[in-house]
Amino acid sequence: MSHVVGLDVGGTKIAAGVLDPEGRVVARMLAPTPAADPPALRSAIVDMVEELRRAHEVDAIGMSAAGFVRVDRRGVMFGPNLDYGVEPIGDALADTLGLPVVVENDGNAAAWAEHRFGAGQGVADQLMVVLGTGVGGGLILDGRVYRGGHGLAAEIGHLGLVPEGIPCPCGRRGCLEQYASGSALERDARARAADGGAPALVEAAGGDAHAVTGRMVTELAKAGDQEAIALVHELAEALALGIATIHAVLHPPLVVIGGGLGSAGEVVLAPLRAALAAALGDVHRGVPEVRGAQLGNDAGLIGAADLARHAPVTR
Amino acid sequence: MSHVVGLDVGGTKIAAGVLDPEGRVVARMLAPTPAADPPALRSAIVDMVEELRRAHEVDAIGMSAAGFVRVDRRGVMFGPNLDYGVEPIGDALADTLGLPVVVENDGNAAAWAEHRFGAGQGVADQLMVVLGTGVGGGLILDGRVYRGGHGLAAEIGHLGLVPEGIPCPCGRRGCLEQYASGSALERDARARAADGGAPALVEAAGGDAHAVTGRMVTELAKAGDQEAIALVHELAEALALGIATIHAVLHPPLVVIGGGLGSAGEVVLAPLRAALAAALGDVHRGVPEVRGAQLGNDAGLIGAADLARHAPVTR
Repeated sequence: MSHVVGLDVGGTKIAAGVLDPEGRVVARMLAPTPAADPPALRSAIVDMVEELRRAHEVDAIGMSAAGFVRVDRRGVMFGPNLDYGVEPIGDALADTLGLPVVVENDGNAAAWAEHRFGAGQGVADQLMVVLGTGVGGGLILDGRVYRGGHGLAAEIGHLGLVPEGIPCPCGRRGCLEQYASGSALERDARARAADGGAPALVEAAGGDAHAVTGRMVTELAKAGDQEAIALVHELAEALALGIATIHAVLHPPLVVIGGGLGSAGEVVLAPLRAALAAALGDVHRGVPEVRGAQLGNDAGLIGAADLARHAPVTR
Repeated sequence: MSHVVGLDVGGTKIAAGVLDPEGRVVARMLAPTPAADPPALRSAIVDMVEELRRAHEVDAIGMSAAGFVRVDRRGVMFGPNLDYGVEPIGDALADTLGLPVVVENDGNAAAWAEHRFGAGQGVADQLMVVLGTGVGGGLILDGRVYRGGHGLAAEIGHLGLVPEGIPCPCGRRGCLEQYASGSALERDARARAADGGAPALVEAAGGDAHAVTGRMVTELAKAGDQEAIALVHELAEALALGIATIHAVLHPPLVVIGGGLGSAGEVVLAPLRAALAAALGDVHRGVPEVRGAQLGNDAGLIGAADLARHAPVTR
């Protein structure tokens, strides 16, 4: 087996890497994303792949994308931060580069990467939760990426947590990511700080409650600040309710937590495990194991590249 | 291919049937369930199978059971209405009868039956909702029964619908079946009737608000009674929220509604479709199609028998 290229196309930057058969990234590149110019986006990707191909023989390309990916994995139907153009971007890249291209949703790609090379190795059924600005997800069921009948499975950020709850930009109310995401944590922390309820957070933000970030909260929680710990616990409890709901449907033995908040480690994972045990604990159903992701920001490109190797889409 | 026996073991009766390769029930039997006497339960099942075998050559046995079925499908870990004994019942029956026996959760069995021979034919990904006294479920994903890592997937009756909601006998609060089941409908209808808010229901129950049944509600709703229609709509809206949550996770293109309330037909299905469109409708995600189940009470035994034919468990 030779090498494959993985791409992680985000709203501000494109990360590209060459993956060897063991899942190691042996070369990488980074470039800004032409987010509103589809032809420029394609050119930027083509240039990166051509550059990487100079040093490595490449068999296929996998692209991880934030957004609704077509069920045939040839393009993106809708990306919240990025205009992919009308022609399926995978087809366009395949034509130009002469290689098979697989487009995969970023949560699915990350789930596959952790399953193959990271925290989820050896577990056939697992839920990946990507706790970033929003909440992404991916499902590995019976050892395969589960995409759903229309390709949009594992949109767990928009799982309905609270009927008539906080409005979500998706048009619904009470979605999980309004309660258990980086942006929810930041929103709640700023409100707590502005109310005078979190003096250490205000201090960390240089005196400006509106400058508090999610990272400040997790850092202060690690240092033992009670207000920061309370904010993280609230997030953990909301996330546990969402996972409990998924547990009722899919009963995954393993949940892998990734994204920026996941990488904060035990300060988030320990209260999540406790909240999940409280929400689910009973003798028959059991409680899924919770592990932190291992591949960090590389998960998207590693997973997409590996999927391209194992299940290429041909025109 | 020859014939297989399907069993549907419930808390009060055991239904048994012989299934031909096209999924037709060509012989059937019914017997009372010895619910608290495991040896008597086994004897009753053995007697039924021996009787059916006299007229048909049988290759395997599939048993549909309400309860937590072991992931190896050899027995029942826990049945809410029935004592299966300590030894896995499938193994015990296999030893006595000399045939492979597959034990399957009743929701899974019904889902498989509808997928193979009923409302879900030709659709690879579908959710089955069994609206009975409680709410059962089954998942067909990529054309196969999805059981989850521990065998307890699709316990959708215990999906958390309302945080801090109505207590459920399962030990949690706010479970779907507290809002969208036959027992929830009956509870709400009796309360409405007792408050004087549903005179036609009280009349149908012979003047006793506490004798109102779910069936009276659906029958009166069919006849146009506004209070009954309102009760069914409330149930449909709660069920739609639960399905919307599952949609965020699995995005099934088809939902099949079975059980007693499902068999009430359009009086339940039409408001469910409307509520689901209201809960989910957006251009990208789509709304799953909702169909009524076609196999009625036979779904459990048909599905279990067909699973035994196609995926026998051998000791």
